[in-house]
Amino acid sequence: MSSTSNKEVRFSKIPTTYPFPGEHLTVSETNIDLDAPLKEGEFLLKLLVLSVDPYMRARMRDPSIKSYFPPFSVGKPMNGGTVSVVVKSNNDKFKEGDIVTGFSNFQEYTLGTKETAPAFEVRKEPKENGIPLTNFVGILGMPGLTAYAGLLRYGKPKEGETLYISAASGAVGQIVGQLGKVLGLYVVGSAGSDDKVEYLKEIGFDDAFNYKTAGDLTTKLAEVCPKGIDIYFENVGGKMLEAVINNCNAFGRIVACGMISQYNLEKPEGIHNIMQVVTKRLRIEGFIVSDSADMEQDFRRDMIKWISEGKIKYRETVVDGIEATPQAMIDMLQGKNFGKQVIKVADL
Amino acid sequence: MSSTSNKEVRFSKIPTTYPFPGEHLTVSETNIDLDAPLKEGEFLLKLLVLSVDPYMRARMRDPSIKSYFPPFSVGKPMNGGTVSVVVKSNNDKFKEGDIVTGFSNFQEYTLGTKETAPAFEVRKEPKENGIPLTNFVGILGMPGLTAYAGLLRYGKPKEGETLYISAASGAVGQIVGQLGKVLGLYVVGSAGSDDKVEYLKEIGFDDAFNYKTAGDLTTKLAEVCPKGIDIYFENVGGKMLEAVINNCNAFGRIVACGMISQYNLEKPEGIHNIMQVVTKRLRIEGFIVSDSADMEQDFRRDMIKWISEGKIKYRETVVDGIEATPQAMIDMLQGKNFGKQVIKVADL
Repeated sequence: MSSTSNKEVRFSKIPTTYPFPGEHLTVSETNIDLDAPLKEGEFLLKLLVLSVDPYMRARMRDPSIKSYFPPFSVGKPMNGGTVSVVVKSNNDKFKEGDIVTGFSNFQEYTLGTKETAPAFEVRKEPKENGIPLTNFVGILGMPGLTAYAGLLRYGKPKEGETLYISAASGAVGQIVGQLGKVLGLYVVGSAGSDDKVEYLKEIGFDDAFNYKTAGDLTTKLAEVCPKGIDIYFENVGGKMLEAVINNCNAFGRIVACGMISQYNLEKPEGIHNIMQVVTKRLRIEGFIVSDSADMEQDFRRDMIKWISEGKIKYRETVVDGIEATPQAMIDMLQGKNFGKQVIKVADL
Repeated sequence: MSSTSNKEVRFSKIPTTYPFPGEHLTVSETNIDLDAPLKEGEFLLKLLVLSVDPYMRARMRDPSIKSYFPPFSVGKPMNGGTVSVVVKSNNDKFKEGDIVTGFSNFQEYTLGTKETAPAFEVRKEPKENGIPLTNFVGILGMPGLTAYAGLLRYGKPKEGETLYISAASGAVGQIVGQLGKVLGLYVVGSAGSDDKVEYLKEIGFDDAFNYKTAGDLTTKLAEVCPKGIDIYFENVGGKMLEAVINNCNAFGRIVACGMISQYNLEKPEGIHNIMQVVTKRLRIEGFIVSDSADMEQDFRRDMIKWISEGKIKYRETVVDGIEATPQAMIDMLQGKNFGKQVIKVADL
């Protein structure tokens, strides 16, 4: 019996504000025997790519607080979106060398069983279309479907309308904006650095601004959205949401995907102009991507087409090694990443 | 030529908090010659009933502030929902003795013209069904349609769900609650006095409470809505809205009809838990009754049926004389009325 090191990312302590690497999120080493025989239905996966996303902050909570997604368990491995390769298999669904996407533990090797098999899907596209593996936790994964379902199902866009996106260079925002252009909208985005603003203009946003240097946000939005805002793709919350409400047109739709500016505050900011929801007949609607699983096939078909036609580009920040995960998570929560934050754990 | 006194209610000054009778709202006397011959298309109306409603507070604003409803003009008569009788007519649409509902100036006599005729509608129901005239600015008027459209079109109720209504004994709230019972919902309401709470239980609410003596609203709502809130018919805003969000079930709908607790504040209260819109997939949607004019015929048919079957009752506070209007308005804004606040200007 040979023993191989199997590193994993653990949730170690519940944070009150930002989580810190080494305190709340740690990397630990266990061991695995890669030569052990597989029982009926078992399969062994080697992790290639893992995804850190803003929603994961909400899972780092006291388990007594109910929410849509189960909390992480202290002392256990974190889990989330992954891309892996099948090392060996005693399960008909998988064969050696298959690329699988899934929702699984953040550990270098995972032993799958009959029971956990449904959480993994064999994907042909990496070999057929040459699409990078990291895309499968990004533009072709959960963030991509979030953008697609959020804008189409909840935003209900009409040609010529103005779409404004906060955190617009992020994993979801950059897709929403380019999708908006495909649909004939006037698209405006904000981000937290001049580099990111430049990137938004490069990928076709009609206008973009750096919210950190913009001054009064209500005034700035009036300037960059001269016809008012019809759809707001909400990723940040707080003062930005207030400024958007001030600039919404009648019947404006606020599609609430996340409110990252509020996740690490002990007391969230107040929204003082919610009364405009009545006077302007606004709709503020929260959504979660898993409610739109029925759109998955349309999403894949459309997105692969738009990517191959060059209509939608996707920027990622890829860091190497599972050890980099805790720092990548905090960087993402603080907006230090540029585009989708991904960890490449191993080469194929 | 004989001259008759024609009293009117004027908007005299823009209030910053509550409007006051004699300062912001005044009663003035002009004169009218009732014997003057009518030109082609003219008709003379005598005012019988006028309506004061919460939305009118929003019209008492600086005209530079845009909103869905035009502001009142300082120095001019106020206007709103009315019931009148035709005194004489030189217009084919109206004949002497007709009862008409309309949107018109708050003055004892109004000279209608070809141009203003479309603002008035002859109503047969008072004579045919014996329905009181005051009902035509209440349960069978704008507040009734507001309740009907708000609950059916925006609340999207499903049998067995929990509906919570604030300002539940008011012009709109009491109808929403009884409508909820017709539709098989669990209906809970709040109001500002024990008398009003008692009334809500009398007309069929499953539970009701006095928000002024309820203590912590989040706790109270958890107690009276043990299965959580699926639909909130929002009339008040502020801390009540926060408490409701805390108690909303996943996919809860907040139908925002008004936020009366905020109308007379210089700085509105902040809503600090709006992030739950994402985690619970809530929808907060504002609406205005005039957008649902297409439901008017269904509304009249259903409501007259339910009233005649005794399924929906309606409580009004009727005060006599056009001079009582300014005080009735402020009483209504302060919640001193009980049910729909109406002014009976003259007998038929």
